[in-house]
Amino acid sequence: MTTQVIVLNGGSSSGKTGIARCLQSILPQPWIRQGIDDLLEALPPSVMNSGSGIEFGQSGEITVGEGFREIEAAWLAGLAAMARAGARIIIDEVFLSGSASQQRLRGHLAGLEVLWVGVRCDPKIVVGREIARGDRVIGMAASQASLVHEGVSYDIEVDTGRAESIDCARAIAAAARLV
Amino acid sequence: MTTQVIVLNGGSSSGKTGIARCLQSILPQPWIRQGIDDLLEALPPSVMNSGSGIEFGQSGEITVGEGFREIEAAWLAGLAAMARAGARIIIDEVFLSGSASQQRLRGHLAGLEVLWVGVRCDPKIVVGREIARGDRVIGMAASQASLVHEGVSYDIEVDTGRAESIDCARAIAAAARLV
Amino acid sequence: MTTQVIVLNGGSSSGKTGIARCLQSILPQPWIRQGIDDLLEALPPSVMNSGSGIEFGQSGEITVGEGFREIEAAWLAGLAAMARAGARIIIDEVFLSGSASQQRLRGHLAGLEVLWVGVRCDPKIVVGREIARGDRVIGMAASQASLVHEGVSYDIEVDTGRAESIDCARAIAAAARLV
Amino acid sequence: MTTQVIVLNGGSSSGKTGIARCLQSILPQPWIRQGIDDLLEALPPSVMNSGSGIEFGQSGEITVGEGFREIEAAWLAGLAAMARAGARIIIDEVFLSGSASQQRLRGHLAGLEVLWVGVRCDPKIVVGREIARGDRVIGMAASQASLVHEGVSYDIEVDTGRAESIDCARAIAAAARLV
Repeated sequence: MTTQVIVLNGGSSSGKTGIARCLQSILPQPWIRQGIDDLLEALPPSVMNSGSGIEFGQSGEITVGEGFREIEAAWLAGLAAMARAGARIIIDEVFLSGSASQQRLRGHLAGLEVLWVGVRCDPKIVVGREIARGDRVIGMAASQASLVHEGVSYDIEVDTGRAESIDCARAIAAAARLV
Repeated sequence: MTTQVIVLNGGSSSGKTGIARCLQSILPQPWIRQGIDDLLEALPPSVMNSGSGIEFGQSGEITVGEGFREIEAAWLAGLAAMARAGARIIIDEVFLSGSASQQRLRGHLAGLEVLWVGVRCDPKIVVGREIARGDRVIGMAASQASLVHEGVSYDIEVDTGRAESIDCARAIAAAARLV
Repeated sequence: MTTQVIVLNGGSSSGKTGIARCLQSILPQPWIRQGIDDLLEALPPSVMNSGSGIEFGQSGEITVGEGFREIEAAWLAGLAAMARAGARIIIDEVFLSGSASQQRLRGHLAGLEVLWVGVRCDPKIVVGREIARGDRVIGMAASQASLVHEGVSYDIEVDTGRAESIDCARAIAAAARLV
Repeated sequence: MTTQVIVLNGGSSSGKTGIARCLQSILPQPWIRQGIDDLLEALPPSVMNSGSGIEFGQSGEITVGEGFREIEAAWLAGLAAMARAGARIIIDEVFLSGSASQQRLRGHLAGLEVLWVGVRCDPKIVVGREIARGDRVIGMAASQASLVHEGVSYDIEVDTGRAESIDCARAIAAAARLV
């Protein structure tokens, strides 16, 4: 069966969005990028840095409350419905709870053909990229680099510290048998 | 029954996003903003300016192909699913086909409690605001100003040429009985 | 003599940038927009929120240290040099020290033909616009609204709470005898 | 004498801005980033794609007219004045005319201590990065990759295809004897 959803999981600044754009460029069909950053941008500022919402600490650590979990669950249910309605979706995610995050997402995507992709980048490298981006709290990249992969199982893993985004995208497209 | 979806329909630069942010600020519950601009941003560049996708002319006119219509339908199905899963959604839309656009959206949102809001702004005013924004093709605002409201029925209409965004938001919140 | 520099002074969210874009659109010659926000964006993050740099409080108050003052002075000297070299400059400024800020800027712009413009907006209105923008710390607009005009003398004043940006721009262009 | 200006010259998507941000992070003093992209952003839209201004072709080629050259010269004179007034400046440039561009800039920066840095990236690599960025006309990176270095002499050259931005920045800081 043809891949309907590509899940890119990796820490902040690991290069997921660059890979997603390259995938959109090389895949013959139109794919929609949807990421946790888009959800955060779509929420009221009050959800950030509130006890029941999502809090970003000064060293890049993130604390997630029950209120945010409920919104995120509804958002993921919506992305799954988009895919069931025929859209091809690339989900750009950060599994803050590792395998537990994957379990939750697996539940939402039940019945869909999903390709699970681990996007890794050596913590030593990712710290420099976070500085070069200039729009992230310094420390987030390092704190998430290995955490988000704990106990997660993948169909393919790529390493943006060793390969360019476009080459990672080509490997993913081949694994998904989409090119 | 409590309003679950607020649909803001208006032409480009009519002030929908500003109203949506004000709604997020004054409403006691967290609401998620989702707009057609977010969908366009999430699509591959190749979908823009291709025959089957969506084309933006040099004078601000927009032509929509069958390929884009299919993606948009799946996206709207997804937003409806988010709302059914418990998320409160503000949809920021441009009904390029007027009442036909509303009919399509009404179909997707079946069973949900929807507040339909018309966001108007005098074409003479909106042209200046489009220039002041600096990030839109000049002409789009004027060409859409009345077109998008043709045959559309609303629960409430607001006019950003006569009232501030925050006051429009307060009127909408009252109409939705959310405050 | 022809106006070489247009200084727009007003509090945060008073609408200076929108007026600047409208001026660029209606003036027959090319004018360059340069604002204090551009300088902040060009500085290292460490200059923000450090004792000698510039600090943004949680309620929108701003504290400026000696280190930032030195950088700002060099930056203003540069803008003046651009104008002396023939560029037409619109400076988008926030006179945090009111008339003292104007004195400093007047010193830098010595010998140039400057049009001083006050951009006002009723504090009650500007608070709502700050919410509608969604990218500013809430409180900054209100705290600056009258402060930045204290003791400042203008060639023309405009009020974005009573006139559209494009109409303010037309009044400014006429006052500068540029159209 | 201490370096007062660092000029980073390289083609589109070669990684200049990332290096500039890393330099800002590792250098003990505050440095101001100023780039040709900032100037383009500050100009009226009418200067783009007009005969006497600057034109961006559909394959990424750029044509520069006399009108734009005059504005650019005034802008560079301003940056030089900022440096003479004590600001430390990192100039992020694209020498579209190779050595002739360097000659012009050298003239503006006369009397200042300048470190000239070549930022290279293999055209094969830079094409992929341009796709991953998602905000550039495809073709610009490849067309500029070697062109901008023709006949230009440097104090140091770095290659972002072989080293991370942060490591390039460290090499530049050492060459400038700033750390």
